Amino acid sequence: MSSRPARVDVREVGPRDGLQNEAPVPVDQRVRLIDALSATGLRFIEAASFVSPTAIPPMAGAPEVMAGIRRRPGVVYSALVPNPKGAELATAAGADELELVVSASETHNQKNVRRSVADSLVGARDVVEIGHGAGLAVEAIVSTAFGCPYEGDVEPERVAQVAGHLLDAGADRLSFGDTTGMATPRRVDDLVDALERAGITSDRIGLHFHNTRGTALANVVSALDRGVTRFDASIGGLGGCPYAPGASGNAVTEDLVHMLDDMEIETGIDLDALVDCARLAQEIVGRELPSALLHAGARTRRYES
Amino acid sequence: MSSRPARVDVREVGPRDGLQNEAPVPVDQRVRLIDALSATGLRFIEAASFVSPTAIPPMAGAPEVMAGIRRRPGVVYSALVPNPKGAELATAAGADELELVVSASETHNQKNVRRSVADSLVGARDVVEIGHGAGLAVEAIVSTAFGCPYEGDVEPERVAQVAGHLLDAGADRLSFGDTTGMATPRRVDDLVDALERAGITSDRIGLHFHNTRGTALANVVSALDRGVTRFDASIGGLGGCPYAPGASGNAVTEDLVHMLDDMEIETGIDLDALVDCARLAQEIVGRELPSALLHAGARTRRYES
Repeated sequence: MSSRPARVDVREVGPRDGLQNEAPVPVDQRVRLIDALSATGLRFIEAASFVSPTAIPPMAGAPEVMAGIRRRPGVVYSALVPNPKGAELATAAGADELELVVSASETHNQKNVRRSVADSLVGARDVVEIGHGAGLAVEAIVSTAFGCPYEGDVEPERVAQVAGHLLDAGADRLSFGDTTGMATPRRVDDLVDALERAGITSDRIGLHFHNTRGTALANVVSALDRGVTRFDASIGGLGGCPYAPGASGNAVTEDLVHMLDDMEIETGIDLDALVDCARLAQEIVGRELPSALLHAGARTRRYES
Repeated sequence: MSSRPARVDVREVGPRDGLQNEAPVPVDQRVRLIDALSATGLRFIEAASFVSPTAIPPMAGAPEVMAGIRRRPGVVYSALVPNPKGAELATAAGADELELVVSASETHNQKNVRRSVADSLVGARDVVEIGHGAGLAVEAIVSTAFGCPYEGDVEPERVAQVAGHLLDAGADRLSFGDTTGMATPRRVDDLVDALERAGITSDRIGLHFHNTRGTALANVVSALDRGVTRFDASIGGLGGCPYAPGASGNAVTEDLVHMLDDMEIETGIDLDALVDCARLAQEIVGRELPSALLHAGARTRRYES
């Protein structure tokens, strides 16, 4: 039997990665959701994205979101920044941590930010400099790390190479995004292997799975078996998949925490409070979310005989 | 890294366990679905249940289903039987294999068949005798093997004990049902451990997971790591959960095979043909099924850049 970690950190990405792929939600509702999430025991919340509001309307009002939330001590409120200008804005708005993204796939990076991967890596240095100048940690996220919707499979060595460049650029932490849900347990093993060969050990990485093809929790289990202890997830499964209308998107936070709880892996998060947040998220976006827990309740649920 | 099996057997249970929990579907449509499934490379199909049609109306017409299907050489068409009378009927109807069920939980067994577990174990002997008398293999399924919706957690030792009695009763194979989706990877390990302690090795067991709380494929991965090579699943995710309306039920066959394919674990099943069957299943029941593959397509799906 494998030896799994005793504790993992779950980062909530619903307010950013989730809502970015929903119809725009007013700032006050986004603040309400983040404040509710911060009361669950979650220690990491991706709260906003400082992208152009014309490019991504649901992320408009990022400074107002950061100003509106009630900061809970011990909670890290991070912001995604697409470029140095975004880094300046996020820093000024009081983000606790910056996240930058570079795709492992050339085509996806071009589609996403109209730049080559090489240009994005150069830009990463500027973002790190701005973050560090303000005393903030900067996380680098490698997207399409398990496959690209345009190019198909992405070689794990390529992902590790991009990750290495990002560490060289000064990134404090790494995360790997399964942008369109192409990861399976085998791909997780392959990536962790390639990262290890590149000297990047599993205690230094975070993983961001999508449940587009139903494998998010299976991937988490495989990653746990390899010693990974940081995972992203989205409350209620907010977000969907921009490539496949109707499909699931991000791993569902409450489903993840429910599984980890029963595996006796500590998260510090209150599951009941989390399910209440999922209900709130569903109310805010006004559509049924793909959360299993919202439909079925926890496995501890009892019926009268 | 764990060593996973090179090949697994997937048994399709949609025509029985799936359709049993849907509004009744006419015999000819059930035959159509089974015939389509038998052309995918699936080697095991649970085709019917010989229960009382008044008790479970969707399973009415079991003999007509068995008579109507086009038998494909190499495919085992099994039938669930609740008691010796059902075993006689299934044998007469030409089932290739019988399945009997006993719950590990006293309360669930009482609710399910209005008998004590002890009485069900006695009845199991008669079913085995009838099956063997007709030259058929008999599989014993232990339900609520990962928890009971009335009693809560079920001790793995209790499950192993019931399993041992079923082997003593002459069952040729064992399967363990996660009846209401209470299994997590930790529960899989606990059960496999308890079975091993009772001398029942993982090569002798099959597992039947439900995706009610999103963990079905994670459970499969944990079981693969323990050497289990037989899994049940339901096409399209037919069936839902009788305890939680709107929740998912059985593991989804095409999602399972898709994951196994990418893990380079051989199933002998054609994924495209399986997805066509899932579409047919959805058409037959006239509701959207929880299949991820139906919404998202396989991970090999490409988009124009």
